[in-house]
Amino acid sequence: MRFDQITLKNRIKSYPDWPVTGITFRDLTPLFNDNRALHLCAHAFVERYLEANITHVAALEARGFILGSIIAYQLNLPIILVRKGGKLPGAVASEDFSLPHGKRRLELQKGSCGDGDRVLIFDDLIATGGSALAASTLIQSQGARVVEAAAVVDLPDMGGVEVLGEAGIPTFTLLAYEGS
Amino acid sequence: MRFDQITLKNRIKSYPDWPVTGITFRDLTPLFNDNRALHLCAHAFVERYLEANITHVAALEARGFILGSIIAYQLNLPIILVRKGGKLPGAVASEDFSLPHGKRRLELQKGSCGDGDRVLIFDDLIATGGSALAASTLIQSQGARVVEAAAVVDLPDMGGVEVLGEAGIPTFTLLAYEGS
Repeated sequence: MRFDQITLKNRIKSYPDWPVTGITFRDLTPLFNDNRALHLCAHAFVERYLEANITHVAALEARGFILGSIIAYQLNLPIILVRKGGKLPGAVASEDFSLPHGKRRLELQKGSCGDGDRVLIFDDLIATGGSALAASTLIQSQGARVVEAAAVVDLPDMGGVEVLGEAGIPTFTLLAYEGS
Repeated sequence: MRFDQITLKNRIKSYPDWPVTGITFRDLTPLFNDNRALHLCAHAFVERYLEANITHVAALEARGFILGSIIAYQLNLPIILVRKGGKLPGAVASEDFSLPHGKRRLELQKGSCGDGDRVLIFDDLIATGGSALAASTLIQSQGARVVEAAAVVDLPDMGGVEVLGEAGIPTFTLLAYEGS
């Protein structure tokens, strides 16, 4: 994986103090804009989950929609949208959580998964783990099990993998960056 | 296409007066959540653009990210993200436009496409055509050509296809619904 990681890291651009001071934004847009890097990245997840008996991929708004949808499609699995509050019509389950710079609400439509389902959560990045943990709560509220939370990037200094681990949610990421 | 259209329409749920009075929201979430309908829908676009000499797929935030990413991946093409204002770091091109219920700004990163590129715009739905037109302006500002604007749903009463046609942007949609 050494060469693969370098190829991917070369396509992720870092923006110190963006969008706010103290945060370094890890931008995956150039990776999505590079066909070879995009395929390499998607393959890593598809290979991991080909025989993992997953039934749904839950993609987190908005950046998690990109690779989450591709991975679901390649695995022939349905997509569950986990969206920011107020974006989904109909009966929804809601979960509030705190981020370093404010509160956030995530929602999914009731009935989008249920008893016996085995769901993979996908986002672009795991930082504090707040989004993935809220998504897990939403999925579990429908009776389904969360098999793993996957992301391209982990920020280990933010502790999200530990938070998710303590909640019984295994994680899988391709790359790690120091700092927040 | 008759049977296909019925399969797809059966997976799109309509919510009258949501999110505001007078608008009927056409919800594609159940289509994304149905593996067979999702593949049927993606195939229709992939077949159309397989030999259209497209170089990039521009996916519009947020619902356009889902099928836009899948279609780009199936066509082995890079993805351009067209995002709401303030979401993309670095040097961006911005375009403001009006919607029936407010103003909106769309952005793309400068250099995400350029001279000689042939870009397909993808969104879930064409209503007034405002988003697709703003996306076209952004793509053209980088020197690239917009080959077509594609969406799953057209709302012909909203006139977007005409607006785009007058701007020289062909459109392609799978389904149409009356009203707004």
